Amino acid sequence: MPYLDSHEPVLSLTTGPVPAYPAVLRAMGSPISYDADPVFQHRYANVVETARVALRSRSPPVILQGEPVLALEAAAASLIAADDVVLNLVSGVYGKGFASWARRHAGEVIELEVPFNEAIPAEAVAAELRRRPDVTVVSVCHHDTPSGTLNPVASIGTVVASHGGYFLVDAVSSFGGLDVHPDACAADVFVTGGNKCLGCPPGLSLVGVSDRAWAKMERNPAAPRASALSLLDWKEAWRPGRQFPSTPLIAEINGLAAALDLYLAEGPEQVWARHALTAAACRAGITAMGLELWPARAEISAPTATVVRVPPNLDEAVLRAVARQRYGMVFSGGRGATAGLVTRIGHMGPSAQPIFATLAVTALGGALRALGHPVALGAGVEASLAVIDEASRSP
Amino acid sequence: MPYLDSHEPVLSLTTGPVPAYPAVLRAMGSPISYDADPVFQHRYANVVETARVALRSRSPPVILQGEPVLALEAAAASLIAADDVVLNLVSGVYGKGFASWARRHAGEVIELEVPFNEAIPAEAVAAELRRRPDVTVVSVCHHDTPSGTLNPVASIGTVVASHGGYFLVDAVSSFGGLDVHPDACAADVFVTGGNKCLGCPPGLSLVGVSDRAWAKMERNPAAPRASALSLLDWKEAWRPGRQFPSTPLIAEINGLAAALDLYLAEGPEQVWARHALTAAACRAGITAMGLELWPARAEISAPTATVVRVPPNLDEAVLRAVARQRYGMVFSGGRGATAGLVTRIGHMGPSAQPIFATLAVTALGGALRALGHPVALGAGVEASLAVIDEASRSP
Amino acid sequence: MPYLDSHEPVLSLTTGPVPAYPAVLRAMGSPISYDADPVFQHRYANVVETARVALRSRSPPVILQGEPVLALEAAAASLIAADDVVLNLVSGVYGKGFASWARRHAGEVIELEVPFNEAIPAEAVAAELRRRPDVTVVSVCHHDTPSGTLNPVASIGTVVASHGGYFLVDAVSSFGGLDVHPDACAADVFVTGGNKCLGCPPGLSLVGVSDRAWAKMERNPAAPRASALSLLDWKEAWRPGRQFPSTPLIAEINGLAAALDLYLAEGPEQVWARHALTAAACRAGITAMGLELWPARAEISAPTATVVRVPPNLDEAVLRAVARQRYGMVFSGGRGATAGLVTRIGHMGPSAQPIFATLAVTALGGALRALGHPVALGAGVEASLAVIDEASRSP
Amino acid sequence: MPYLDSHEPVLSLTTGPVPAYPAVLRAMGSPISYDADPVFQHRYANVVETARVALRSRSPPVILQGEPVLALEAAAASLIAADDVVLNLVSGVYGKGFASWARRHAGEVIELEVPFNEAIPAEAVAAELRRRPDVTVVSVCHHDTPSGTLNPVASIGTVVASHGGYFLVDAVSSFGGLDVHPDACAADVFVTGGNKCLGCPPGLSLVGVSDRAWAKMERNPAAPRASALSLLDWKEAWRPGRQFPSTPLIAEINGLAAALDLYLAEGPEQVWARHALTAAACRAGITAMGLELWPARAEISAPTATVVRVPPNLDEAVLRAVARQRYGMVFSGGRGATAGLVTRIGHMGPSAQPIFATLAVTALGGALRALGHPVALGAGVEASLAVIDEASRSP
Repeated sequence: MPYLDSHEPVLSLTTGPVPAYPAVLRAMGSPISYDADPVFQHRYANVVETARVALRSRSPPVILQGEPVLALEAAAASLIAADDVVLNLVSGVYGKGFASWARRHAGEVIELEVPFNEAIPAEAVAAELRRRPDVTVVSVCHHDTPSGTLNPVASIGTVVASHGGYFLVDAVSSFGGLDVHPDACAADVFVTGGNKCLGCPPGLSLVGVSDRAWAKMERNPAAPRASALSLLDWKEAWRPGRQFPSTPLIAEINGLAAALDLYLAEGPEQVWARHALTAAACRAGITAMGLELWPARAEISAPTATVVRVPPNLDEAVLRAVARQRYGMVFSGGRGATAGLVTRIGHMGPSAQPIFATLAVTALGGALRALGHPVALGAGVEASLAVIDEASRSP
Repeated sequence: MPYLDSHEPVLSLTTGPVPAYPAVLRAMGSPISYDADPVFQHRYANVVETARVALRSRSPPVILQGEPVLALEAAAASLIAADDVVLNLVSGVYGKGFASWARRHAGEVIELEVPFNEAIPAEAVAAELRRRPDVTVVSVCHHDTPSGTLNPVASIGTVVASHGGYFLVDAVSSFGGLDVHPDACAADVFVTGGNKCLGCPPGLSLVGVSDRAWAKMERNPAAPRASALSLLDWKEAWRPGRQFPSTPLIAEINGLAAALDLYLAEGPEQVWARHALTAAACRAGITAMGLELWPARAEISAPTATVVRVPPNLDEAVLRAVARQRYGMVFSGGRGATAGLVTRIGHMGPSAQPIFATLAVTALGGALRALGHPVALGAGVEASLAVIDEASRSP
Repeated sequence: MPYLDSHEPVLSLTTGPVPAYPAVLRAMGSPISYDADPVFQHRYANVVETARVALRSRSPPVILQGEPVLALEAAAASLIAADDVVLNLVSGVYGKGFASWARRHAGEVIELEVPFNEAIPAEAVAAELRRRPDVTVVSVCHHDTPSGTLNPVASIGTVVASHGGYFLVDAVSSFGGLDVHPDACAADVFVTGGNKCLGCPPGLSLVGVSDRAWAKMERNPAAPRASALSLLDWKEAWRPGRQFPSTPLIAEINGLAAALDLYLAEGPEQVWARHALTAAACRAGITAMGLELWPARAEISAPTATVVRVPPNLDEAVLRAVARQRYGMVFSGGRGATAGLVTRIGHMGPSAQPIFATLAVTALGGALRALGHPVALGAGVEASLAVIDEASRSP
Repeated sequence: MPYLDSHEPVLSLTTGPVPAYPAVLRAMGSPISYDADPVFQHRYANVVETARVALRSRSPPVILQGEPVLALEAAAASLIAADDVVLNLVSGVYGKGFASWARRHAGEVIELEVPFNEAIPAEAVAAELRRRPDVTVVSVCHHDTPSGTLNPVASIGTVVASHGGYFLVDAVSSFGGLDVHPDACAADVFVTGGNKCLGCPPGLSLVGVSDRAWAKMERNPAAPRASALSLLDWKEAWRPGRQFPSTPLIAEINGLAAALDLYLAEGPEQVWARHALTAAACRAGITAMGLELWPARAEISAPTATVVRVPPNLDEAVLRAVARQRYGMVFSGGRGATAGLVTRIGHMGPSAQPIFATLAVTALGGALRALGHPVALGAGVEASLAVIDEASRSP
């Protein structure tokens, strides 16, 4: 009785799009304002200011009117000029992918790459910068989602700053789920969005830009202007009384406002703890069940996604199809180099609930068994619960 | 880290209010119509007709503007007259409670009672009616929710019909979750509502009334009129062009319309199968974990709630508080005679998802352990999953 | 091209149901909580407290789970006992109608009636109470909506208090639109609801009850208990940790919470000013167009509805049908004694916008002309605008 | 009493963003799906197919994940290559603005320009193409919104087709409000969006592309790929089973689905008639009031916006501020060359209601008077109503 084939799944624990917070969805149903109306302009400026507070940044971020892939492309096009040498740090598929945008604009792009289940040590970046003192821009993906691994952006940022380079950080699927902020990692361009740990639908990007990065963009004759890819267009255009370069996505702005309010009301530290506990409960269950995690070690595992190595000789897509068909549970597959090798369980915003980790372990275990792969399902569930139980005893 | 104390729970698996279907909540946000507007009047009549189809009834039900407790009170007040002898069938707290309404209006109320974990055999009703041929009305609660047990209303209905009595059925928490309909059980008054298996918020009741019951009410001088408790007021008043006796609850009507559409679109038989599988998966997990069910046997267990006997020496309220605090999972306690003795897991409408049964077993097991009561948690989870897996192999 | 016949109208300016505030509709789409969940219980208690603040009352009101017609019936049944002599004040259809509920419970009901376009002077009440010192309860409808007239409840309340009687006030369609509150008019029972000037859908009632009225109800053996009509059931039952007598209408509670927040955030005095200006603009336009108002004079005209006398030889229902068909504008007709004689334009909550008054004048004028009745439409529009313009020049 | 300064306006009749249809806003609150989930992929394909039907096109359009300004930039970048000579037709600010995108990619851009209150005759295009037989691409804005004028795209399309050029049509603010479709005007690229006459919030674009235009883009080495500006990326990527180039804006897709359903359910011809009647009622009122329209004559006036010449010596921004402050009515100002000269009243989707035209005339007249400019307000209202009344008498 595969009763779910033509129905919405019961629970979506993917690495995105994530299920939005109900309050965000309700806010998106607010009446649509005229973008030049003073009440809307005031609201927009408030959203920017709330985002600035959430980003713990001195300067207001820019909201771009598209999901973060647009913002990453825009960041590369705006910041990177023909005379730049870019050091692109690669620990996964998304880090690797950024090079293709960088190459469109840079004089040269060099790469420092580690295996895709590893993280890039700050020391290695320092060494590379000593080797290539002409590097002007360093780019990194903080949470390379197809791997579920975190790069140490704070220490890398220190290295880049002392080198004098510009530091471009993709924090799309990490900001809001753990302690990462533009100023704290000395980022010159810090790209994130509402549609991961903040619990919005895809639609908007947040881009933190340092003063020196703004200056560099303004000097860059090839930086997009009068374009959907322009950061410069939006730099001050959101201030009340000015004219937006293009129509803002009103409903998404209303949703982002609600998401930022939720984030600050719950308390960032509380939100991060919720993500961390969910991930810990998930990893414990997965390993107790006899499965392996993709990241080389726990310290570099992201709290926003648990990436599970699929046992050999199993079709990963079939595995997920079985979990959906039997249990209504949806996970993500790998991407690029990790496609077919891993199944990914997201813990982002509304899906970062510890008990969902236990349920994910249950459903993944059940699906593996259904495909003839024995797992210690009961042990997995117990180990996952034990992590939650232990946390509940802490002060 | 009891992070959930001041937050909404993660998942509510109670016996009601149940989490409404998202489409129902969206429909409730439709613009509020003037109740005398022709478009609204047409829509109201459509809802009545759709409800008639869902109830598989020849005649249109009445929608009362309050949740089903109001409708049960109204049904007693409307149907039962001073010259009636009521046989009230009692297999649980709600059945027992109906007598208090019946006694306000009846000449005499007698009761046939079984233990609250049992069901009432049709034969016993037949015997009682032979003993008391002066009985004019028989009342029964189909699913006595505080016990999680079902009475055999179809066979009791046959008995009552052959006796010539009026049959009043409380199907509040069963209709929509299994195969029960007014005509099929020969009910004269059949009370249900949107807020259980149809997945609406509490707000409206559906009352099926047979032609002879209408006639009896019209003969009853004490039947409420010009009252919120009046069935007669609403008999024909909903037809387009007439005036509603009081303002209908517009938003709730919009929600009910959406809920009935969902029910018919998924297909009643599919919906019942979903409830049945969820309950089977829940019962299997609970018993495999070493716990006992409240109903005396599976055949009388409702597919819309699993009622678990709490082990001795455990405080049931604390048990649920722990499940909520640690896992964000909410269950119902007992009520009246079953309060303190049982924990109830609801499977109604949106919560009737098989994998939720497995999660309920997990969370209840975890909470029991936290209170020092050992359970075979892993075995429970495995048994629950096994039921789902078995179903997925059926054609 | 009667393009609107099968469509929702463009704008509904009726005396209720009113179009709900968008924020109220969004709140109603919040996830449905289990009513015994501590977070919901806390929220419910907050709504009661916010309602108390809005009512400017010392003691918390009771929320009844039905629209105000249920609450009025419940108030009569709870307060009025067999040894009571009720003086029912009648200045319109609703005041008249209350007598039918009072007679069910009172020893005797006497009436003081004025023409239905007039208000009841406090002096007349005083005189009647001198004539019948045995009167124990005085009941009045503050805004008799089918007439659009206000009774002076504050001064009548003083008279009743000095007489020592209980004072029951129906403020359903006035509270929230002007300065009327239970303590300020010495009401013992004050019935209102969310679905008029607060801008909720119909669903809930607010009932303010004085300490002495609670004591009277408790002494009344016939006061409803274990009933949807019971005020006593709900007196303290809403306090966290107790059990609700019946399931609260969760979605409606969420909507009411939002409506009360809106009311207090805009500022009651601002809200009343908005209603008053809308009504003034409407009356000015109607009279300048050559039509007559139903109320005998402006001082007794409610700011929440403008009631227009329909010129002789016109079919009032056809008049409204034309306004809807041509312009998509919906108004209310009369009710009972005023049916056929008047068309009513509501100014309640979201519909209390001055410019809507001008639009109502326009549409009503257009419809009258379409039926062959000449009106000074342009003069009406200008007079209506002039009132708004004048107000905008005030400090 | 400028009570509206800090509040949402009462009614927004701008040229966009327009107030979304309530059903669209509700649909946007649907649960957010994982974009790779088969149910979502099926839904996305359905939206494309419904859009194809609405566009009356043989081939499926592409949905771009941004509002139409992004799509216009993407269309220019994708279609126009270095060896192209573009003839850009200019009858207003938006047509003029397109040249800046065209110049980025074309070998040469020439322009045919008429005064901004005029339309471009097809004959003039034919003459220009005879003069410059090397023109390969012709671009035009159908409804140049800052002017409220329509270009004859069907006849221009015939001219371009016989010339053998590619025809790029900006139909952003016309499609859905009148009879314009890609195949019917022989457009090779036809750009529109949900956020004007379809009644969505800004967020998505619809781009119809002819087979030969797809072939041209594929031959164009500079056409964006792996970019938010890429049409090619999306050509087939939306088909179930493939991977979206970037995450679709799930909520906006849900909203667009609802909007297209509404459009087809009401009936396109009915929708256009509603727009046309609204515009006619608006123009009649404006001129009867003594004001002038911006378009040179009625035949080239768009049914989706009425553009009013502001009397000399009046500050247009102040005029709109007064209309908002006094009446809560919001209009658009001009843009670029028309800024300060015109006030624009939008009739798009939900705002295309004839009675709103009368209200706009009223509010604009009132605001003019408030600024000391006399207008025949009553005459304007009467003339506007007369148009509606006349239409209601037609069969």
